[in-house]
Amino acid sequence: MYTTSANVAERQAAPPSLAISTVIFALRPSEASGRPTLWLPLVRRIREPFKGLWALPGGPLTHSESLQDAASRNLRETTGLAPSYLEQLYAFGGLHRSPTQRVVSIVYWALVQPTEAALADESENVRWFRADKLGELAFDHNAIVDYALWRLRNKLAYGSIAYHLLGEYFTLAQVREVYEAVLDTRLDPANFRRQIKATPEIEETGEYLQGGKHRPPRLYRFTGRPGLDPDNRSTP
Amino acid sequence: MYTTSANVAERQAAPPSLAISTVIFALRPSEASGRPTLWLPLVRRIREPFKGLWALPGGPLTHSESLQDAASRNLRETTGLAPSYLEQLYAFGGLHRSPTQRVVSIVYWALVQPTEAALADESENVRWFRADKLGELAFDHNAIVDYALWRLRNKLAYGSIAYHLLGEYFTLAQVREVYEAVLDTRLDPANFRRQIKATPEIEETGEYLQGGKHRPPRLYRFTGRPGLDPDNRSTP
Repeated sequence: MYTTSANVAERQAAPPSLAISTVIFALRPSEASGRPTLWLPLVRRIREPFKGLWALPGGPLTHSESLQDAASRNLRETTGLAPSYLEQLYAFGGLHRSPTQRVVSIVYWALVQPTEAALADESENVRWFRADKLGELAFDHNAIVDYALWRLRNKLAYGSIAYHLLGEYFTLAQVREVYEAVLDTRLDPANFRRQIKATPEIEETGEYLQGGKHRPPRLYRFTGRPGLDPDNRSTP
Repeated sequence: MYTTSANVAERQAAPPSLAISTVIFALRPSEASGRPTLWLPLVRRIREPFKGLWALPGGPLTHSESLQDAASRNLRETTGLAPSYLEQLYAFGGLHRSPTQRVVSIVYWALVQPTEAALADESENVRWFRADKLGELAFDHNAIVDYALWRLRNKLAYGSIAYHLLGEYFTLAQVREVYEAVLDTRLDPANFRRQIKATPEIEETGEYLQGGKHRPPRLYRFTGRPGLDPDNRSTP
C-alpha cells in the first residue's frame, strides 16, 4: 500500500487510498498490581514508512468487503478474536498522515471480554500494550488511540459500554474495576455499589462467585439491550 | 467519478473510490403553516447513475483537501454558505451503494442558521427540500439522511445543538420551535419554558424582540461552549 519509490508527481496523480484500522480494547491484569487495566494489541511494521514501530492492526480495504467486515477480519487476523462490541470510530483523512501517499483511514473500535483477551494470539510482531504506555506509534496512531480512549470514557458515562468489557456474570466490584481502569482513577466502593445497584438493567442472579473466600460475592447480570445506547444505532 | 462504460472486471480491478457528501440542515418556514420546519439542500444529478434524481451535495475527495475542508467546500459551492456547525457523521461503505463502481462516502452533517439559510443559492439543479418530504433520492442517500436525522434528534436531547439552528439572540418560543421541528411533535409551552429557563447556559439579555406586539418577548442568549458537547470533541 505504501510505496517509497513513487515520486511526488506520481503520488499526487494517484487517488487517495483507503485503509481500515481497528483500536481493540480489553481489560488485562496489570503486571505490577494485578489489577485490571486497559490494554490494546498492536502490530509491528515490517516495511517503510515507520518500519519497526508499532501500529494499529489494519490494512487496505478490499473489493469484496463492507467497512465493518474488513474491520472484523483485521481483528480476527491480528488477535484470533471476535469482538463483543464493534463500532465505527472516525475517518481520519489529514493530508500528511503518511509520508509516502495520501491515505484515508476509516477506524473502528472494538471491545473484547477479558476471558477472550486472555486467549488472544501474540507473536514477535503482534503484542498487547497497556493503553497508558504505548510509546511512539506509526503514522498518527497515537492521536487515534487518544480519540478512541476519549470516546470510550465518554460512553462509559451514559451507556452500557462497561458490560462489553466484562463476562456475562460479574460482581459489583468487577464493574467498579472496569470504571477505574477506563477512567484511570479510584472510586469509592460503597458509593459506586449504591449507584450500580440503582441501575434497573443490573440484575442479581442468585449465584455467587466461586473461590476460596469465606463470604463469596454475589454475581450480577446485565439485562439491558446494548443497541439502545444513544450513539449506537444498529445500522446507519 | 461514475463510469458506465467500465465492465465488471475493470471495476473490480480499480480501488474503491472516495467521496465526501454533506447533509445540511436548516430551519425554514413551512409553506402551509409558516411554522419553522427542517429543510436540507439537494443537488439534481445530471449524469448516470440515477440521472435526474436528487442527491446530497458532494463529490470526490481531492488531493489538496482534508476531509473537513472538502465538506466545507461542498457546502459553500452548493449553498454559498458557511455552516455554524459541521461534524463528521459516518463513513458509508456498503458494497452496492453505486451500481457502477465501489464508492465509499464519508458524510459530514452541518447546521445552518435560518438567517443564513434564507440567503442560500437555489437554481434549477440545487433546491431545498423539507426533510420529511424528500421522495426517492439517488444511491443510499435516503438512508443517510435518515441516519443524520437520528443523530440530530439524539444530540438535541443532551447538548447545545439546538442553538446552532438559531441566531445569537432568540426567544424561548423560538427554542421550542426548534425542538418541535426536529422532533416533529408539539411540546407544552409552559413546561418547555420552565425546563429551558432552568438551563444554566441560557442567559437573559435584557433585550426584547422588535416587532408590532403589545408585549414583546424577551431575548435570550446561549453562553455554553459547543465544544463541550459529549460527542463533539474539537479535533480527533
